Amino acid sequence: MINQALQHWRAGEASLGAWSNLPDIHLAETLARMGFDWICFDLQHGLMDYGDLTRLLPAICGQPVTPLIRVAANQPEQIGKVLDAGAHGVIVPMVNSAEDARRAASACRYPPAGTRSCGPLRDAMIEGFNYLATANEQIACIAMIETDEGLANVEAIAATEGVDALFVGPMDLCYGLGLAPGDFENPVFTAAIERILAATRSAGIAAGMFGYTAEMAHMAINNGFAFASAGTDISFFRSGAQQALTTASGEQNDNQKKAVY
Amino acid sequence: MINQALQHWRAGEASLGAWSNLPDIHLAETLARMGFDWICFDLQHGLMDYGDLTRLLPAICGQPVTPLIRVAANQPEQIGKVLDAGAHGVIVPMVNSAEDARRAASACRYPPAGTRSCGPLRDAMIEGFNYLATANEQIACIAMIETDEGLANVEAIAATEGVDALFVGPMDLCYGLGLAPGDFENPVFTAAIERILAATRSAGIAAGMFGYTAEMAHMAINNGFAFASAGTDISFFRSGAQQALTTASGEQNDNQKKAVY
Amino acid sequence: MINQALQHWRAGEASLGAWSNLPDIHLAETLARMGFDWICFDLQHGLMDYGDLTRLLPAICGQPVTPLIRVAANQPEQIGKVLDAGAHGVIVPMVNSAEDARRAASACRYPPAGTRSCGPLRDAMIEGFNYLATANEQIACIAMIETDEGLANVEAIAATEGVDALFVGPMDLCYGLGLAPGDFENPVFTAAIERILAATRSAGIAAGMFGYTAEMAHMAINNGFAFASAGTDISFFRSGAQQALTTASGEQNDNQKKAVY
Amino acid sequence: MINQALQHWRAGEASLGAWSNLPDIHLAETLARMGFDWICFDLQHGLMDYGDLTRLLPAICGQPVTPLIRVAANQPEQIGKVLDAGAHGVIVPMVNSAEDARRAASACRYPPAGTRSCGPLRDAMIEGFNYLATANEQIACIAMIETDEGLANVEAIAATEGVDALFVGPMDLCYGLGLAPGDFENPVFTAAIERILAATRSAGIAAGMFGYTAEMAHMAINNGFAFASAGTDISFFRSGAQQALTTASGEQNDNQKKAVY
Amino acid sequence: MINQALQHWRAGEASLGAWSNLPDIHLAETLARMGFDWICFDLQHGLMDYGDLTRLLPAICGQPVTPLIRVAANQPEQIGKVLDAGAHGVIVPMVNSAEDARRAASACRYPPAGTRSCGPLRDAMIEGFNYLATANEQIACIAMIETDEGLANVEAIAATEGVDALFVGPMDLCYGLGLAPGDFENPVFTAAIERILAATRSAGIAAGMFGYTAEMAHMAINNGFAFASAGTDISFFRSGAQQALTTASGEQNDNQKKAVY
Amino acid sequence: MINQALQHWRAGEASLGAWSNLPDIHLAETLARMGFDWICFDLQHGLMDYGDLTRLLPAICGQPVTPLIRVAANQPEQIGKVLDAGAHGVIVPMVNSAEDARRAASACRYPPAGTRSCGPLRDAMIEGFNYLATANEQIACIAMIETDEGLANVEAIAATEGVDALFVGPMDLCYGLGLAPGDFENPVFTAAIERILAATRSAGIAAGMFGYTAEMAHMAINNGFAFASAGTDISFFRSGAQQALTTASGEQNDNQKKAVY
Ligand SMILES: [Mg+2]
Ligand SMILES: [Mg+2]
Ligand SMILES: [Mg+2]
Ligand SMILES: [Mg+2]
Ligand SMILES: [Mg+2]
Ligand SMILES: [Mg+2]
Repeated sequence: MINQALQHWRAGEASLGAWSNLPDIHLAETLARMGFDWICFDLQHGLMDYGDLTRLLPAICGQPVTPLIRVAANQPEQIGKVLDAGAHGVIVPMVNSAEDARRAASACRYPPAGTRSCGPLRDAMIEGFNYLATANEQIACIAMIETDEGLANVEAIAATEGVDALFVGPMDLCYGLGLAPGDFENPVFTAAIERILAATRSAGIAAGMFGYTAEMAHMAINNGFAFASAGTDISFFRSGAQQALTTASGEQNDNQKKAVY
Repeated sequence: MINQALQHWRAGEASLGAWSNLPDIHLAETLARMGFDWICFDLQHGLMDYGDLTRLLPAICGQPVTPLIRVAANQPEQIGKVLDAGAHGVIVPMVNSAEDARRAASACRYPPAGTRSCGPLRDAMIEGFNYLATANEQIACIAMIETDEGLANVEAIAATEGVDALFVGPMDLCYGLGLAPGDFENPVFTAAIERILAATRSAGIAAGMFGYTAEMAHMAINNGFAFASAGTDISFFRSGAQQALTTASGEQNDNQKKAVY
Repeated sequence: MINQALQHWRAGEASLGAWSNLPDIHLAETLARMGFDWICFDLQHGLMDYGDLTRLLPAICGQPVTPLIRVAANQPEQIGKVLDAGAHGVIVPMVNSAEDARRAASACRYPPAGTRSCGPLRDAMIEGFNYLATANEQIACIAMIETDEGLANVEAIAATEGVDALFVGPMDLCYGLGLAPGDFENPVFTAAIERILAATRSAGIAAGMFGYTAEMAHMAINNGFAFASAGTDISFFRSGAQQALTTASGEQNDNQKKAVY
Repeated sequence: MINQALQHWRAGEASLGAWSNLPDIHLAETLARMGFDWICFDLQHGLMDYGDLTRLLPAICGQPVTPLIRVAANQPEQIGKVLDAGAHGVIVPMVNSAEDARRAASACRYPPAGTRSCGPLRDAMIEGFNYLATANEQIACIAMIETDEGLANVEAIAATEGVDALFVGPMDLCYGLGLAPGDFENPVFTAAIERILAATRSAGIAAGMFGYTAEMAHMAINNGFAFASAGTDISFFRSGAQQALTTASGEQNDNQKKAVY
Repeated sequence: MINQALQHWRAGEASLGAWSNLPDIHLAETLARMGFDWICFDLQHGLMDYGDLTRLLPAICGQPVTPLIRVAANQPEQIGKVLDAGAHGVIVPMVNSAEDARRAASACRYPPAGTRSCGPLRDAMIEGFNYLATANEQIACIAMIETDEGLANVEAIAATEGVDALFVGPMDLCYGLGLAPGDFENPVFTAAIERILAATRSAGIAAGMFGYTAEMAHMAINNGFAFASAGTDISFFRSGAQQALTTASGEQNDNQKKAVY
Repeated sequence: MINQALQHWRAGEASLGAWSNLPDIHLAETLARMGFDWICFDLQHGLMDYGDLTRLLPAICGQPVTPLIRVAANQPEQIGKVLDAGAHGVIVPMVNSAEDARRAASACRYPPAGTRSCGPLRDAMIEGFNYLATANEQIACIAMIETDEGLANVEAIAATEGVDALFVGPMDLCYGLGLAPGDFENPVFTAAIERILAATRSAGIAAGMFGYTAEMAHMAINNGFAFASAGTDISFFRSGAQQALTTASGEQNDNQKKAVY
């Protein structure tokens, strides 16, 4: 297997992804054809679970987009199970220490590098047992930094063997830093971001950002993040529907409209 | 029961709806809270079927939005079944003659007004048997005009007892008129639209339009249609995602962006 | 295969069934163990469709209860498909003429007795090809009498080769007879019931009744019906919940209660 | 958001709930309209999981009934995930110590009151970000007392900051006390109940009881419990079906029946 | 769009397909990678319906295998709906006359060639509106010959404009010819096969065979059929399981086994 | 309840099972009728989760096959939940110490033998409360030995009260022993197998083997294992499909084929 997103990060090529909270197969199919580098299916906060994944991952297979999964918790069996279903990488929430990071990385890799249990169901279906030879190298382990404790240990986390990237959860990080949720321009928050970026640079790994808005994603890439999510399926849907409602209601300037029938 | 959308049409109040092609419960929940007057779940071309409806309709129940269903064909058992599941109206494709219109209207009404079979499962669950006393008056039967034959018979269709509205399917109507799909500014097309509007005015019923775009919906309302769909869930999603990708890529003018963290 | 319910009818043994409108596997499992002779899954008015059947029928297989299906309409492909999924009989709505009856019976039987297409998927899974040798004899074709036209032709319908039973739909029959829905004590209704019973006696086939209430089912059996439904899953659930709420609220006489902890 | 059930408890108004073990949307819709104050969907012993919840919670949204979830275990990610899906409270099994209670309460509250991770998907869909301002106050954390260890620590558990109620699991408590399951009248059991009630009174929080029967629920309310479940969906269904079968079989006195057709 | 299977037929290249009766996504994913030229999902006799298709078709999209659907009946709305979901061709059962054939072909093509209604949901998602320009040419309409009436009219059916292939249903054809099911070596059966092959050669279209066994498929290809199904998913599964059970039981000669641990 | 497989093990009768990775109801129904002694549904590596189990277990209930579940991890709430859904035994991965074994066994048994929480939903539905009297004796707790640590502690694990069998995971054991995955003939591996067998003999419990192939299962039984899986549903399916494709392609000797039509 080849993890396209990981190749981009290793090559220093910034890329954008999409965040999926809804278990609709056809939303996933659509996203997979729009130019995002990766899609992250969210089992922590998203309205989906493992059973949904087994239907979503086949629907984007064969398209040039890397499937990532955010697991609900740093539990080896959860990480192993989503990898067996075909994920190319896992985003692990609430990684607060080097010990947490080792636990996550270990769950992503077969022995002797780690402790992943062997049973790569969909991967073997797709690739045969070549999978076993390449998985340890290609699976991405992505640790979320989103608490004050995680920030305090960020350099050790970034330096942990087997961690491929750090990923910022901005809302939880606000809470963790004692800020109001969404206070992303607070100097305390921006200093935290700088520290996380510095830690990834020192460790030679990638930094990623959950883009709370598309503007935030753009700024993150400009500031040195290797990857960011441009939004969630729900946000895409809602903004598109709101725009259509505004247009259809004529609340925009009618002058700009051309005849349509 | 009260059919809110039908009340609006009867009161001459123009309104906008949304078209649902995807069977995701949470997309439906979101749509139901955005200000659309009605949502039409599409069993003809949409990626959903009756089983999906049984999950979608409860998810929007209690919100101020009227559930309409486009059935796959003018078949009484299909019409009866979606009404039993809680639809407040049906959009019937390919109504080409007064006989077609009578068939559709009859399937929507209990005897002696029609031939609907009695078994209003979800309706009775929600309202009890008051439902039987109000359904014939409140259920909307909406006939699609989308072929040359339908256009030729539009006045008779509009005048059929029990038909509450006509609804234009613009792509099929293009095909039916021998035009290229999407040639909505062709005089042949616009003349057809005028004839349909005139037929509804004469018959004292409402006219509706499938808005191929939000602009088209706006124009339809401006031109006298009582209702129009502002877009589909897929189109909302795709346009929102495209916009986010553009913004996050920085392809828009960076000057307009404010700091976000 | 052996159709237990049909054997009972042929032996003149009255029996009770349950009506299923909800696609929950565990409700069906529970029903299958309570002593009902048959369960009818309703694809006409019930909140379920064919996909649900494929999950419900395996869940009651192996229990001593006969699976019947009410199809949405008298369409050969619908009848064939539910038989292929493992139904032992079909209840066909709105059989209004001998021609309707022949159409239904033909769809239930392989040539030369009928025109059922060969592909008994679940049946063959369960029994192997012994199924083909027994199906024509064991599959029950049950015609609903529920309109004035059906009543007018009831003797010819009962006498149609391949019809195994008639089944009364009382609410639709009220409508069809010009009565208020539920006016089951009206002499017009009771005379219709007598005529239907007489027609089945003459033809030597069974008569069945949709029991709108358990009392109605009891009376039907007492009056000569071979089978009746004692209620629906929704009615069972609602009455049990209402009873529990009353008891828990203490609205019943507290004197009768014994200590429970 | 407003948690109706919690308001009732805080106001000292006793209330009854229903327990849901089956993932059928329409059972839930029916329950939501019958007058129960709350419905608890059971992810510990019920035949449902998180994916079912995502379909069940929308189906009762908008009805005046509070959605509670019993999680399978006292795991923060499980608690967070069901809250994100729209639960207004969690019932946490096997809370055996103040430490267990703190763990549960922390998972229910955003920092600084707790450690809940931010991502209220359905809540935000329904309310927007007003949710974040009210959730910590309105989400109910309900700790189950159902072991000997839990009983031994019940006063400390009740006094734990953030615990809103205790809830008795009577079968497990029998086992935990070395009693036969169901021996609810044993003095050892009744003494335990009194101790739990006393602990809640001292702490100023509510006490709840899983009503093994409706009679048990009634007695619990009479004895000072603020809330109790009147039964489970399976018990409602089974008792209603049994009653109908008895009635239809004529095993009850026929004299009391009136004509039904 | 390009219909790979149709290209093979037009080029005179014989090919093998697989028949899918089970709605499991991962069986479909596996089949799509094994070298079959096409997979036919069976909505007539298979244990699946349209809702399943919406999950199965995305799972094989992107693999070099052509998705065909057998519809339950020759109904335009059924044909249109499966094409909208992404089928590249439809197999239509019980085509008994040239009129039947015209009805099927018309449902497969947009005007003016036919009467397909416009709404190619998944196709447009995958290809954009290029789909509309190519669909009429690439969609395959495949008529089943499986009754005596169909055989009597086979030359007219084969010559019908828009029919791309004939397909033999051998079990139904046995029944239709008055033979025992499975009597495939009866001269009456083999003569029918020869007549069907001759009709396709005269009309310049392809002939296909439902392979009741893999041997039958092989013989069909040898005898001039352009395509045949090598078996069904259920038959593949059952024969593989039976073989494994035999091997594991040691019922085969132990001498041939090599050590495995 | 009676656990048929456990009776066989206790009686010293070797038996074969099947491994299920796919959540298809009809595959399970088919397997249940083929002569396997047990079916293990795999929640660790299989493409299924708990929600699937609730549909799969009813589909095999009533057939003479014992339902086992491999849980994803040695977590009491996972074990309890699958038992409540009707499993007769659990296979627990990665049991590495006597402490791990005690944890697993405790989760399988009601107090005082263990700590299983009471709520046997499907079991009680099927058997009533007789279940509680028999479950502790009949539920099988099966501990997997598949790491070097587990091997080092195998005698203590086998001797743990409440452990009914050990089960070898050969691929993980290879990894754990520092061997290449699949190196089952390596003396290090075969010595490990001998040690595990000896431990079970000493403890008087059964030994089981995951049969990576049917040949491996056969050899395991020959070498003293009480039970082995003959293959997985995916392997059965793939080998059957491959065989059919080979046959239909004529790649086998045509001489051996008899006429089929
Ligand atoms: Mg977070
Ligand atoms: Mg149209
Ligand atoms: Mg009826
Ligand atoms: Mg408990
Ligand atoms: Mg056929
Ligand atoms: Mg293992």
